[in-house]
Amino acid sequence: MWQLYQFPLCPFSRKVRLLLGEKGVGYEPVRESPWLRRDEFLDLNPTGQVPVMVDDERGVTLIDSQVICEFFEETVNKAPMLNGTATDRAEIRRLAIWFDTNFYAEITAPLLHERMLKRIVYKQSPDGQALRNAMKAAVNHLDYIDYLLDHRTWLAGPTMSLADLAAAAQISIADYLGGIDWKSHEQAKGWYIRMKSRPSFRPLLSERMEGIPPPADYEKLDL
Amino acid sequence: MWQLYQFPLCPFSRKVRLLLGEKGVGYEPVRESPWLRRDEFLDLNPTGQVPVMVDDERGVTLIDSQVICEFFEETVNKAPMLNGTATDRAEIRRLAIWFDTNFYAEITAPLLHERMLKRIVYKQSPDGQALRNAMKAAVNHLDYIDYLLDHRTWLAGPTMSLADLAAAAQISIADYLGGIDWKSHEQAKGWYIRMKSRPSFRPLLSERMEGIPPPADYEKLDL
Repeated sequence: MWQLYQFPLCPFSRKVRLLLGEKGVGYEPVRESPWLRRDEFLDLNPTGQVPVMVDDERGVTLIDSQVICEFFEETVNKAPMLNGTATDRAEIRRLAIWFDTNFYAEITAPLLHERMLKRIVYKQSPDGQALRNAMKAAVNHLDYIDYLLDHRTWLAGPTMSLADLAAAAQISIADYLGGIDWKSHEQAKGWYIRMKSRPSFRPLLSERMEGIPPPADYEKLDL
Repeated sequence: MWQLYQFPLCPFSRKVRLLLGEKGVGYEPVRESPWLRRDEFLDLNPTGQVPVMVDDERGVTLIDSQVICEFFEETVNKAPMLNGTATDRAEIRRLAIWFDTNFYAEITAPLLHERMLKRIVYKQSPDGQALRNAMKAAVNHLDYIDYLLDHRTWLAGPTMSLADLAAAAQISIADYLGGIDWKSHEQAKGWYIRMKSRPSFRPLLSERMEGIPPPADYEKLDL
């Protein structure tokens, strides 16, 4: 049985969990708080980051969410998430990296810092300006999603792909932390409702981070 | 014919060029200075980063060095750089991402900022403390390379892989900018001499960034 080291508000672990859910791969979640820099976890992964997946029976350790997604894409045929030609796959990977990198740096990371780490690690109040900057950046990313959906059913093309999982994972954490305003983003909202309706997504939405409640409509399908 | 947007000291473009060289894929380099934020280039890639590859005839644009490497790995059989089982490939990707992310953030990026951008963009002198921090971090990474080579011929296993290309690309830029001291890193040095000897590597070593000369032994095989 695979073990998945993660914590409830890690967007990269969520991307992996969505992929495992779509592919029907079972795993046991193991709670890891990377900010504690636990020695045993650093021995497992020198970067100290989650997600990490471990299969003790086969002696396999997978580090980094991109590495994990490529591994299961290569080894499990069900629900391919890198579909199509090499060019199609390049577009899927480009968008997944875009959300993993740019959306995370501009929105998810500052929200996690202000609303989670400051509360549970630094015992400080969030910085209002940093929160406003993140919410402003989120509007630009929702505009970009609207633009992609003008031409496509899913973010990278005609089928759901790793790009949708990466984007939905980041957005779901930003939404949990109150950083998303769907106003005048009807297309992005419609796409996100489709994502939220997936059986792979429902269990993630019911999880809570202790002491940090989500907004009232966080789990709702009717935004 | 592929066009590759890059500048001589971009480590990610170097990784791509090493892979294209090993695979025998021809391309025309196009000089792009991402810090100028040229409108036409931002239209091509909204992140504003190099490398980008364009094939006008086929209407294909490839963005991001990881995306580009996966694309040519999938479409060109010669000189496979993601060799072996899914687990072997996971280890190759893990290490390539390690050098792309951690080595870059701790060493290459600060060296480029202090020794290149401050000279050609900001017209400032480099900060000695930042340079010393980068050189100290480089020692830790060379230790890690020594450790990997205790058990392996190449960084990720028995054959040269994308991990070696990613590491050598970062190290070659750090070396150009005076950030690498090979003292007491015999194994890493031996591996780097092997990398430098590759026909794919030689053309990169002869390129210069205007106004920024490399150290005297930068091109030498006898370090």
